[in-house]
Amino acid sequence: MPDGGTAATLGVVGGGQLGRMLAEAAAPLGVELVVLDPTPDCPAAAVARDQVVADFDDPEGIATLARRSDALTVEIELAGPEALETAAEAAGVPVHPDPGTLSMIRDKLDQKRELQAAGIPVPAFRRVDSASEVHEALDVLGAPAMLKARTGGYDGRGNVPVASPDQAADALAAVGGPAMVEELVDFDRELSVIIGRGADTVSTFPPGENVHKEEILRETIVPARTTDVVRDRAVSVARNVLEVLDGRGIFGIELFESDGEILVNEIAPRPHNSGHWTIEGAVTSQFEQHVRAVMGYPLGSAQQRAPTVMTNILGDVDTARATQLTVEGSVRDRSATGNDLSSLDPTPVLADTGAAFHWYGKREVRPQRKMGHITLSADRPVDDLLVAARRLRDELTFSE
Amino acid sequence: MPDGGTAATLGVVGGGQLGRMLAEAAAPLGVELVVLDPTPDCPAAAVARDQVVADFDDPEGIATLARRSDALTVEIELAGPEALETAAEAAGVPVHPDPGTLSMIRDKLDQKRELQAAGIPVPAFRRVDSASEVHEALDVLGAPAMLKARTGGYDGRGNVPVASPDQAADALAAVGGPAMVEELVDFDRELSVIIGRGADTVSTFPPGENVHKEEILRETIVPARTTDVVRDRAVSVARNVLEVLDGRGIFGIELFESDGEILVNEIAPRPHNSGHWTIEGAVTSQFEQHVRAVMGYPLGSAQQRAPTVMTNILGDVDTARATQLTVEGSVRDRSATGNDLSSLDPTPVLADTGAAFHWYGKREVRPQRKMGHITLSADRPVDDLLVAARRLRDELTFSE
Repeated sequence: MPDGGTAATLGVVGGGQLGRMLAEAAAPLGVELVVLDPTPDCPAAAVARDQVVADFDDPEGIATLARRSDALTVEIELAGPEALETAAEAAGVPVHPDPGTLSMIRDKLDQKRELQAAGIPVPAFRRVDSASEVHEALDVLGAPAMLKARTGGYDGRGNVPVASPDQAADALAAVGGPAMVEELVDFDRELSVIIGRGADTVSTFPPGENVHKEEILRETIVPARTTDVVRDRAVSVARNVLEVLDGRGIFGIELFESDGEILVNEIAPRPHNSGHWTIEGAVTSQFEQHVRAVMGYPLGSAQQRAPTVMTNILGDVDTARATQLTVEGSVRDRSATGNDLSSLDPTPVLADTGAAFHWYGKREVRPQRKMGHITLSADRPVDDLLVAARRLRDELTFSE
Repeated sequence: MPDGGTAATLGVVGGGQLGRMLAEAAAPLGVELVVLDPTPDCPAAAVARDQVVADFDDPEGIATLARRSDALTVEIELAGPEALETAAEAAGVPVHPDPGTLSMIRDKLDQKRELQAAGIPVPAFRRVDSASEVHEALDVLGAPAMLKARTGGYDGRGNVPVASPDQAADALAAVGGPAMVEELVDFDRELSVIIGRGADTVSTFPPGENVHKEEILRETIVPARTTDVVRDRAVSVARNVLEVLDGRGIFGIELFESDGEILVNEIAPRPHNSGHWTIEGAVTSQFEQHVRAVMGYPLGSAQQRAPTVMTNILGDVDTARATQLTVEGSVRDRSATGNDLSSLDPTPVLADTGAAFHWYGKREVRPQRKMGHITLSADRPVDDLLVAARRLRDELTFSE
């Protein structure tokens, strides 16, 4: 029986919204989650069996997690690959994806080098360790270009545009660690492919088109509004990327479409925001697929059910007010659960019988923070779905 | 905002599979569950925020549950309506369905009388308090007939067929409490309608056809294999039944089809086994609909997506061996989670990309116990789906 059959526990490093949606997908399969996260009462905690409160790379915390699990995985890049490998070996449980792959992806320079070595098209890039190296990079790659922290960045954090050589020193200081410079790709469209590897099969969801604003994903549209040739090319590139990745699980491959060509932007070794549409829009969700893959179960069908649009719900309130948000009229004794979550009235979305609502249960609203998402999946043109999804999203307001 | 918006906690009396599937459906809505159940580590506990360990009708336990909740509901008939009403009032939270309706449904005699008074067709019945009254009942209703405990029966428990007057005394002793006799209906088909009431709307799922064996539900087939006229009549009767039920939430209305007529067999004031098909087969599941209704959110669409068959997975092992079942190769440190669940290899179901698998995480396999279910939903004739579902179910075996 694979890793304990229906009585299995999956240990997950990270307990954010991805961990929460993993727990939601795992429960019907009889798979229980224990999550590791430094924030008490993290989003996944309400749905998981239990939470180990520890830093993402804390060896002792990960060892505790491993002892309580039949298999280990991650939902955040900050997971410590070495600690994971050591803990998994000591507890005798598998860890997926492979910690070596997690290490490689974690360092954006290593990631790009690995892809380049495999002949996969990527934007031009250079390692930079000093202002003078940034100058050289701008000479070669053109200006403006993007200075990127090699590790720790996400949702645009750690990325600093550099318009001219005189900004190099300040940009390096802002990044504050090992860095690289990457050419700014003049892309026509951003795409992504959610791809999964099981024990002996590969499963590829159809490519989505992603709309970013201020480097944060706003919407995913599936099918992507491009040509069949480009969509096929995106899938083919994603499959080539998977070749350089070891271990089972879901990977999110972010791509640029530029003049009909596909370049790889970034790899996420886990379910990805641009794959949330699969919950309603595909036969199997990326979350269930990840659970199946990591537990060694057969993979489900990645077939699309209907045209689908997903839009994120971002925190939109002033930072100063954020921590003061409480539940309207809250008089409940929440001391035991700590359930004084920030709140939003979901009525406009729930009143639309075509919309699916997903809320992450984060305890604090912050501007630009991903608080939830809305999905519309129906036999209608994606442009119509996009208009409808945006309208619904814009109707939502946070209460104070 | 209805009952606390996205930051709400729903308190549920009962933490079996219905509570677990309520928790699975509530999480995406941002609604967290606290369940009350006397069995530590009950099926819902792994997915719910927390469990209050107490008897279903324990006033103190229910008061604790109420203080931690924004709204209260039940997933088991054994919930104490008086304790619920008192606790809800003291904590100032709503309870749905109405405790008066829970009381009425709880007593099968009261339930039948209420339905009869409302002009709803039911099998003929009589209250019996002695063997001589059973004799009279058999004279009037015909023999064999069914002796039923007025309270506490489910899945056929508390029901004793009486073939002749000389069995009356033994049957009464077996039932062991207040009882009624009901005529045995010579039905053509068993149907059920899942119906829900929200704050100001009613939502009716299409009728399902139920196959029972030894009084335990084995399969539900939707649409029911009967005429349009009968299906419409079933819906119409279910709507009439809802008129005598107070409060919001999902009700499962079990029906007999006999010569084209519809008789009401029993009412469940909660999501019902015969509504599990809605998870994949309808736009909104009965569980999400119940959460929406009880929390005061708008109801979702009850529209059917595709022909659907659900089959239960029942425990099939010897009672003597049941408690000895352990996870194959289990060496995990489960002391903290208590996760030594009985196990089953779900591979045959998961390998079928058309099948959905649901496991309840019960710690002990017992013969005839509901351990999980399988759903097939596709644009195929229901007879084909039924054959395929039975084949999948029969491939499953419990490990020892």
